Amino acid sequence: MNYLGIDLGGTNLKGAVITEEGEIIREASRPTHAERGADSVANAIGELICTLAAGERIGGVGIGCPGTVDNASGEVVYANNLNWVHYPLREKLRERTGFAVELVNDANAAALGEVLAGAAKGAHSAVILTLGTGVGGGVVIDGKLLTGYTGAASELGHMVIAENGERCSCGRRGCFETYASGAALTRMTEKAMAQHPDSSMHELAKRYDGVDGRVAFEAQKAGDAAGDAVVKQYIRFLALGVANLVNIFFPEVIALSGGVAEQGEHLLAPLREEVSRMEYGAAYTAKHPKIVSCTLGYRAGMTGAALLAKNKNGTA
Amino acid sequence: MNYLGIDLGGTNLKGAVITEEGEIIREASRPTHAERGADSVANAIGELICTLAAGERIGGVGIGCPGTVDNASGEVVYANNLNWVHYPLREKLRERTGFAVELVNDANAAALGEVLAGAAKGAHSAVILTLGTGVGGGVVIDGKLLTGYTGAASELGHMVIAENGERCSCGRRGCFETYASGAALTRMTEKAMAQHPDSSMHELAKRYDGVDGRVAFEAQKAGDAAGDAVVKQYIRFLALGVANLVNIFFPEVIALSGGVAEQGEHLLAPLREEVSRMEYGAAYTAKHPKIVSCTLGYRAGMTGAALLAKNKNGTA
Repeated sequence: MNYLGIDLGGTNLKGAVITEEGEIIREASRPTHAERGADSVANAIGELICTLAAGERIGGVGIGCPGTVDNASGEVVYANNLNWVHYPLREKLRERTGFAVELVNDANAAALGEVLAGAAKGAHSAVILTLGTGVGGGVVIDGKLLTGYTGAASELGHMVIAENGERCSCGRRGCFETYASGAALTRMTEKAMAQHPDSSMHELAKRYDGVDGRVAFEAQKAGDAAGDAVVKQYIRFLALGVANLVNIFFPEVIALSGGVAEQGEHLLAPLREEVSRMEYGAAYTAKHPKIVSCTLGYRAGMTGAALLAKNKNGTA
Repeated sequence: MNYLGIDLGGTNLKGAVITEEGEIIREASRPTHAERGADSVANAIGELICTLAAGERIGGVGIGCPGTVDNASGEVVYANNLNWVHYPLREKLRERTGFAVELVNDANAAALGEVLAGAAKGAHSAVILTLGTGVGGGVVIDGKLLTGYTGAASELGHMVIAENGERCSCGRRGCFETYASGAALTRMTEKAMAQHPDSSMHELAKRYDGVDGRVAFEAQKAGDAAGDAVVKQYIRFLALGVANLVNIFFPEVIALSGGVAEQGEHLLAPLREEVSRMEYGAAYTAKHPKIVSCTLGYRAGMTGAALLAKNKNGTA
């Protein structure tokens, strides 16, 4: 039996037919056209489902959605980038396709995909962190997503690591997200560039058509002192939050995704060193979390959504 | 069938015969005499088990131990207040009693007790925080303790909330424990007393034979401005960490124990108000964690240990 996974994004809808083992057989995508309204987006999702399902025996459909979802009621509770509030997506898709879809937050879907079929395959437990505009992620323990009493995604980015620190878009101050997102790295880079007009970061930013998360890393690799300082500062903040999550969950794997994670060992090696010094009781155990990069890329969300549909009891 | 729960403390050994529902039928205690060495303590535990088990049909024995335990191997890996390193407690007790005991960290045992039979009975998920010398605790989801890949307890007190903040005994800086433990409240109180020689806290400290967690709260109740400021500052720190745990776990219940929790609504009411402002996405859900006091007191650990023995698959 195969399963359908859909990744509902603000810009594009992506979908795939996926095996029980998480392998992608066929995929397709459409523009979301969120500006046309929720019912129109539901039509597009329904059409994508029917197209992908044609000629297949489909055991279930899972949809990774941005924002807060309530899988019990079948609603997208709140998704600011779609401008949806309490939208009954399951009911709308049942009318259009006959499938009773499973809903899951998109970051959680991606986390589940990486644990069941990607970077943390086979792990007892894993924390997946996405370092993008914000810091998103998910926690999977014994194959089950941690979603809590409210059904909300674990909001790992909204853990305060710096009391009275920088203002976060969520209203708190000092959230992990304000220090460890890709956007935070860009802000740190811009600040260092303003202080160091001779840094090679200026040249790199021109080459990349603007400042992004790569600039400081590339400058560091070229021996630039200001770039090196930015990267070290960024990794120190990232390590603080990762170490907090280690001490809370003691997971087998911590896997990073998002643009910054593309730095691979340039990010991971110093991060592991910082985190190992902050791991509680590290001296007394031989088991330590492995810190790695995610492997499924944009397919993680579709894969996780499909595998969630496979195992409808896949949340805890 | 009944179960035996043992709470191995640095000073006293406590044990009880407990029903499947978590009710205590009979209890007993002994001094631990840790200074006599691990084998001598194991003898005392064995004797306590045999005494309590006499004439009963016992389905299993659970032991809440300080420090890091490895229930897979049956060892107390490290317990600094007993001075034990890699002590094979299960094997020692099997020789003495015939029972293959289940080992669990003491704070986790207490958390499990509160969730299965106390303040969070019937809850989907709960975070239990003990505000004592440190900040200990446990997380229970769907009736299972969160223990992680290493089998270690969740070390909720060793989550940094203040980057580059006060030094913690674990080696990091700014841990939740250094701001929200009972000991932290005492330190804040002492500091405020030094700055405010006219505060009624001085008189209260004499009455209590020293500064402890009650002084600032009692001063606040009597209208003392300096005491009020200490309590507000303490609750603000406590709320930061509690809100982090809410955003990570979205549990149904957060329950507090330890001396500070005896303040009841004087602590809980302002804490709820602070936390509610920091709860991620609170505006879009009707479900919010309940913040309450624990109800089992010193019996929580024995109860949880016994119920863990009842459900040997009780960890996740």
